[in-house]
Amino acid sequence: MRIAMVLYSHMTALDIVGPYEVLSRLPGASITFVGDGSGPVPTDAGSLFLGGMSDFSDISADVVVVPGGPDVAAQLADTRLREWLRAVDAGATWMASVCTGSLILGAAGLLRGRRATSHWLVADRLREFGAEPAPERVVVDGKYATAAGVSAGIDLALDLAGRIAGPQVAQTIQLAIEYDPRPPFTAGSPATAPPEVVGFLRANAHLIVTS
Amino acid sequence: MRIAMVLYSHMTALDIVGPYEVLSRLPGASITFVGDGSGPVPTDAGSLFLGGMSDFSDISADVVVVPGGPDVAAQLADTRLREWLRAVDAGATWMASVCTGSLILGAAGLLRGRRATSHWLVADRLREFGAEPAPERVVVDGKYATAAGVSAGIDLALDLAGRIAGPQVAQTIQLAIEYDPRPPFTAGSPATAPPEVVGFLRANAHLIVTS
Repeated sequence: MRIAMVLYSHMTALDIVGPYEVLSRLPGASITFVGDGSGPVPTDAGSLFLGGMSDFSDISADVVVVPGGPDVAAQLADTRLREWLRAVDAGATWMASVCTGSLILGAAGLLRGRRATSHWLVADRLREFGAEPAPERVVVDGKYATAAGVSAGIDLALDLAGRIAGPQVAQTIQLAIEYDPRPPFTAGSPATAPPEVVGFLRANAHLIVTS
Repeated sequence: MRIAMVLYSHMTALDIVGPYEVLSRLPGASITFVGDGSGPVPTDAGSLFLGGMSDFSDISADVVVVPGGPDVAAQLADTRLREWLRAVDAGATWMASVCTGSLILGAAGLLRGRRATSHWLVADRLREFGAEPAPERVVVDGKYATAAGVSAGIDLALDLAGRIAGPQVAQTIQLAIEYDPRPPFTAGSPATAPPEVVGFLRANAHLIVTS
């Protein structure tokens, strides 16, 4: 199974590394990283670089994962990326995104009429691309699987692993990466976080997502 | 606050990227990546590279994070890494590890007489380094904070964020990365996974952790 994961400058590292740790453990998985073909790209906080990227020339993959980032304006306007996504979509079994990666899928025209999700601060923007924002953490509509913000990529990838290889393989991967989450606080969604925390992030959304 | 994260070849990417996404959002955080100073290192599945690394010459940091990997034999025997860890430990406020990274802290002599944890398949090996294996997902003993396997680094980092900057900052980070985990299966620890899944991984532990 050929899995293509998109890389670009200032993307959120965890958006792709969560799915990488899950999907790379699928039997027969072969992961490639796709982007502008330059060297390692800086990630969101700037100091960590992700590398191993080839360019957009290969348009065949069974599974595609598109990460988000705090500012995806450049990716929304990137003709080459959008054309690659449309080309690879034609043969792919699963098109997936994490966080604001769903806006990129949307900009490529792939989410029209679909239910989808994104980072909670920008999920309403999915309507610009003809998609219907849905409140779940992982939304699967046809072959389009979108996840909420950043850490939701792990849940999305385990969901996909179960659909691709069956629940026992997905459970084996979950135990291998010891994914038994125990957040020390209850603040992971706007529905559960203290109102002042939600208010602070809404008032400072530009610090988190700027596009 | 200076945060140093260790990188090495074939480390598990999520071990460091989980804490990176959390700790890089702490006010005033400055993250550096430390290792042998070579170029980007291949991670566990081989196709993703992590870069941005400086060498071991800087021995000052407030927080240190050591990732694990499927085979840390080379790191356990790496004199330069162990000496760096002992030197930086002298001035650090927090020494943290994820997964088999605790074995590396142990090999540096830093966990003697401490409670600590590691990936569930190798936690008993902490005894070789004079540490007492503890069953929690995140174990804090003095300034030594160790996490269970792979994904546990996110929980550890949020715990540390709360201790360093207070619960409201930690909650703000948790909501920013939308960490409201919803694993689609209940198989993240040997206590909750189906017995046949636990048995398969125990019988094939060499596929997961080989040192």
